[in-house]
Amino acid sequence: LSRIITLLTDFGLEDGYLGSVKGIILGICPAARMIDITHLVPAQDIRAGGFILHTVYRDFPAGAIHLAVVDPGVGTERCGLVIQTPNYFFVGPDNGLFSWVLKNEPAAEARMLENGEFWRSTVSSTFHGRDVFAPVAAHLAAGIPAALLGPPRIAHIAEWSTVSRHGSTLKGEVLHVDHFGNVITNLDRKTLNDLAPNRRLVIHAEGRAIGGLRSTYGSEPPGAALAIIGSHGFLEIAVNRGNAARVLNLRAGDTVLVGVSSEISPLDPTCTKPTGPTAQWKR
Amino acid sequence: LSRIITLLTDFGLEDGYLGSVKGIILGICPAARMIDITHLVPAQDIRAGGFILHTVYRDFPAGAIHLAVVDPGVGTERCGLVIQTPNYFFVGPDNGLFSWVLKNEPAAEARMLENGEFWRSTVSSTFHGRDVFAPVAAHLAAGIPAALLGPPRIAHIAEWSTVSRHGSTLKGEVLHVDHFGNVITNLDRKTLNDLAPNRRLVIHAEGRAIGGLRSTYGSEPPGAALAIIGSHGFLEIAVNRGNAARVLNLRAGDTVLVGVSSEISPLDPTCTKPTGPTAQWKR
Amino acid sequence: LSRIITLLTDFGLEDGYLGSVKGIILGICPAARMIDITHLVPAQDIRAGGFILHTVYRDFPAGAIHLAVVDPGVGTERCGLVIQTPNYFFVGPDNGLFSWVLKNEPAAEARMLENGEFWRSTVSSTFHGRDVFAPVAAHLAAGIPAALLGPPRIAHIAEWSTVSRHGSTLKGEVLHVDHFGNVITNLDRKTLNDLAPNRRLVIHAEGRAIGGLRSTYGSEPPGAALAIIGSHGFLEIAVNRGNAARVLNLRAGDTVLVGVSSEISPLDPTCTKPTGPTAQWKR
Repeated sequence: LSRIITLLTDFGLEDGYLGSVKGIILGICPAARMIDITHLVPAQDIRAGGFILHTVYRDFPAGAIHLAVVDPGVGTERCGLVIQTPNYFFVGPDNGLFSWVLKNEPAAEARMLENGEFWRSTVSSTFHGRDVFAPVAAHLAAGIPAALLGPPRIAHIAEWSTVSRHGSTLKGEVLHVDHFGNVITNLDRKTLNDLAPNRRLVIHAEGRAIGGLRSTYGSEPPGAALAIIGSHGFLEIAVNRGNAARVLNLRAGDTVLVGVSSEISPLDPTCTKPTGPTAQWKR
Repeated sequence: LSRIITLLTDFGLEDGYLGSVKGIILGICPAARMIDITHLVPAQDIRAGGFILHTVYRDFPAGAIHLAVVDPGVGTERCGLVIQTPNYFFVGPDNGLFSWVLKNEPAAEARMLENGEFWRSTVSSTFHGRDVFAPVAAHLAAGIPAALLGPPRIAHIAEWSTVSRHGSTLKGEVLHVDHFGNVITNLDRKTLNDLAPNRRLVIHAEGRAIGGLRSTYGSEPPGAALAIIGSHGFLEIAVNRGNAARVLNLRAGDTVLVGVSSEISPLDPTCTKPTGPTAQWKR
Repeated sequence: LSRIITLLTDFGLEDGYLGSVKGIILGICPAARMIDITHLVPAQDIRAGGFILHTVYRDFPAGAIHLAVVDPGVGTERCGLVIQTPNYFFVGPDNGLFSWVLKNEPAAEARMLENGEFWRSTVSSTFHGRDVFAPVAAHLAAGIPAALLGPPRIAHIAEWSTVSRHGSTLKGEVLHVDHFGNVITNLDRKTLNDLAPNRRLVIHAEGRAIGGLRSTYGSEPPGAALAIIGSHGFLEIAVNRGNAARVLNLRAGDTVLVGVSSEISPLDPTCTKPTGPTAQWKR
């Protein structure tokens, strides 16, 4: 049995914390394949961590265990979770980190981590990533059934990110700014389609008009802003060959409005695959 | 044979140096499992690298090979080391990087790297991480005994970090500031216990009173400073949900004083495991 | 079959993009061994990415697949490539990223990625790293022959970096500044040898005299600038125990001139291996 364990934390990369987590996992399940998603979630930013996890977890093969630790609940009484879905396991604190996953996975079953038999022999008060969550993920990877880890529990689901509709206008917000400065919103393809299938959309961010939806970054000249459905399925504001967050001065929490224009346009920007020897595609 | 090789360096993550080290290792020992501890040790900071290694190495299963390269000894005549302890191997320069490990491992046997048969066929003058230390670690992972690598040697132990006691006051210093801004000192649990078992301690950092020892970050309100024994066993100064180094303006080298108060208090902050279905724990 | 796939991108480490790429690869080729080279290539800097790849790829064992994605060609019509050399495969966009590799590998055979059977079932318009290049690399790792991926193609080779000779003076430029602040030029050992075998060289960077070629960083006192042939075989300007780019105010694109002095000196700084029990070596 060689299960994949992905790791997503706010531990950073400059200390030994991540090494400790991996060492503990290997001691319990030497065959575990550990894949880093990111360890640069902004410190204690549960919402950002949950969003990144949400955009990535389905890209892994069935059976993968997603270990996620963004755990600012210092001193509060939060418990630990294992969540089982048809294809995956999730392990981490019950603080909302798995909110998007749970909304997205109707068949998810959550359990409270309670059986200390599967924890580190000494549990510190400051590092449950190493002492509780890593051992639990490793035992899952080694084949221990989730039911042994603790009793069922209704997991906490946070309602951080709301989309509201006023007539023919959607109001959403910026969730995340990525490495390239692309500004990712909480408006997904289905929501936009429900508003205006095959209609041209008009997007505004913090009062500034971005224009309609494009299907490639290169649809606008270098330096120009544009809106696009990003690779994760959310509306994204970008600048061709530039940094949209910097150019447009946008950040997480900013308001994004989407209205409808009367012109017909194809909404879905997913490429069709090129076929035949002369096919060429755009990035 | 599938041995773990951990990697700790000051190489950073933006160049190809780390990739070269890993490629060389895989060429010699294709089954090696390489685990990054960190590559963001401040450039040429042997003390910081040695401290991080010390806090992490015992979390790995027995048999692991710890490859550590922080090597500022440019042009000086320092040699390379392999160190064998009952559970681990260590490979790197003989410049003090393994000082904490050696103090902690009375049965350690050090050898000077001398047998060029186990090095890269061409050895550069600027990159022994790739040309000497990586091949040696890979050969160890492949089963070569340490005794073939070179003759015994008394390894260099640096005395960077001293704790002094004046009556009932301990004087230590800040060793490291972690990703969260937690300020980690060189005062360990045993030293504090020797000073005042079951006594309340009074901690000062650079003249500022921090108060007594707490057992969780959440023992103080958000934004308040506190002292705690960190997950690595050293006295740490933290700010609940905040960045202590920034709030208190502390950095490596700053002085920390610990005195004794007369009240009785439990010193050891290690959690007992919760048991039973209603158990709840604090981070 | 357990092939190595190396990864070099400008994706950064703070998002989920890299995790997605790795998840997709594992879904196609569960036995693939993925090794990160770097993901901190400056955003959209094809030249920097190509240079780092060039300095690293030969350090991996034969059979390795080098997946490289620095892909600023937003909206332009660039296609994807697979390149096969006697020892390696390369996968990525046809935008010059493989220029140094191709100049260095006369037997390289390039093919255009065209057969969508080996791509992700849905191909986005914004993330070919995940949707095209990762699946192709994974299929190569699983044993699919390159010839099935698409027809032969003349790959794009960029001519960014030129070295010119005027009499007995070479004019080159700074290619890259590494993590330590070492300033790496496009002047390689062979070019310098052709100019003046066994002759003393005189190096100037942006009008400032650096002096002759040294064989170790420690040949000059701490804080002093020096020139050296770096571990990758290119002329490099360094400061002993310091940051040359900062001290000398140099950056990529700056001009470097190399002239000839009349004194004889050994050019090749490659160490000979120390032999015998009293051997000592310099870093």
